[in-house]
Amino acid sequence: MDFKKEIRVIEDFPEEGISFKDITTVLKNPKSLKSCIDELANKFKGLDIDIIVGPESRGFIFATPLAYKLNAGFVPVRKPGKLPAETLKYEYDLEYGKDSLEIHKDSIKPGQKILIVDDLLATGGTISATASLIEELGGQVVGIGFFIELAELNGRKKLSNYDVESLVVY
Amino acid sequence: MDFKKEIRVIEDFPEEGISFKDITTVLKNPKSLKSCIDELANKFKGLDIDIIVGPESRGFIFATPLAYKLNAGFVPVRKPGKLPAETLKYEYDLEYGKDSLEIHKDSIKPGQKILIVDDLLATGGTISATASLIEELGGQVVGIGFFIELAELNGRKKLSNYDVESLVVY
Repeated sequence: MDFKKEIRVIEDFPEEGISFKDITTVLKNPKSLKSCIDELANKFKGLDIDIIVGPESRGFIFATPLAYKLNAGFVPVRKPGKLPAETLKYEYDLEYGKDSLEIHKDSIKPGQKILIVDDLLATGGTISATASLIEELGGQVVGIGFFIELAELNGRKKLSNYDVESLVVY
Repeated sequence: MDFKKEIRVIEDFPEEGISFKDITTVLKNPKSLKSCIDELANKFKGLDIDIIVGPESRGFIFATPLAYKLNAGFVPVRKPGKLPAETLKYEYDLEYGKDSLEIHKDSIKPGQKILIVDDLLATGGTISATASLIEELGGQVVGIGFFIELAELNGRKKLSNYDVESLVVY
């Protein structure tokens, strides 16, 4: 499906110079939502995935229907303080300052096959941190799927150890 | 399915006296995730739903797979500043202070049939605000579904104009 026709590009959001890719125009259309999930599922079929991990909060939008479709479980990765049980935390550098992500320590069992899914690949910082959390728990990252990839930001390079697939490339 | 066996109850989170219902233990299990979405879908089948609206961010977890399953679109309701295009905003009172939610103005067309889905019904404030936003855009709220309902907080009373369904009641 030609998703670019449906993605709404909004200039200077959330700040000047950024050309924001608005996916809500895709999601509200039942046919494009369905195609998007089915096409992502096709990229990773036959991998016998146990768990799909999605980072807060737009990652949830793609990870849960994909988990439903592929008969996998869903595990969230969240900002600090949101997950109620014992967590593993990963701190990573941003352009200015630091950010961190958490996962429940008991969410993944060693050896489980994990697919990471998010809406957008930019610099790859969030997903690289997510993969580190999963691997520290003993999970095996068998693939990483994005709806959109911003190729010029070169996030794919940071994720070069993994099978990275995206449906739309800008 | 007896979901209570799988929901993890965590005392004093996020603050003392609150008995938090942790749904991540349900979501990571492929069978319970599937049952949960299928049982919610069964509650609302035959309603010819156009759009499923889910509030940020745990609402996304249930709303998108349900939209996928029911061949509907998905529309997010988010905290202020997150949605990139023109929004409608609804401000509502909390016990201390105020909170507000936004929806894209062009996300719903007048007359569309809307199902609202969230993880948990507590006091009903978020969902009541969400229903107001939808109705201001001309949408028709044909049902509201929750995974969990905390009956003692009486949120159902605030939503008494609607068909409210939940899978697990505490």
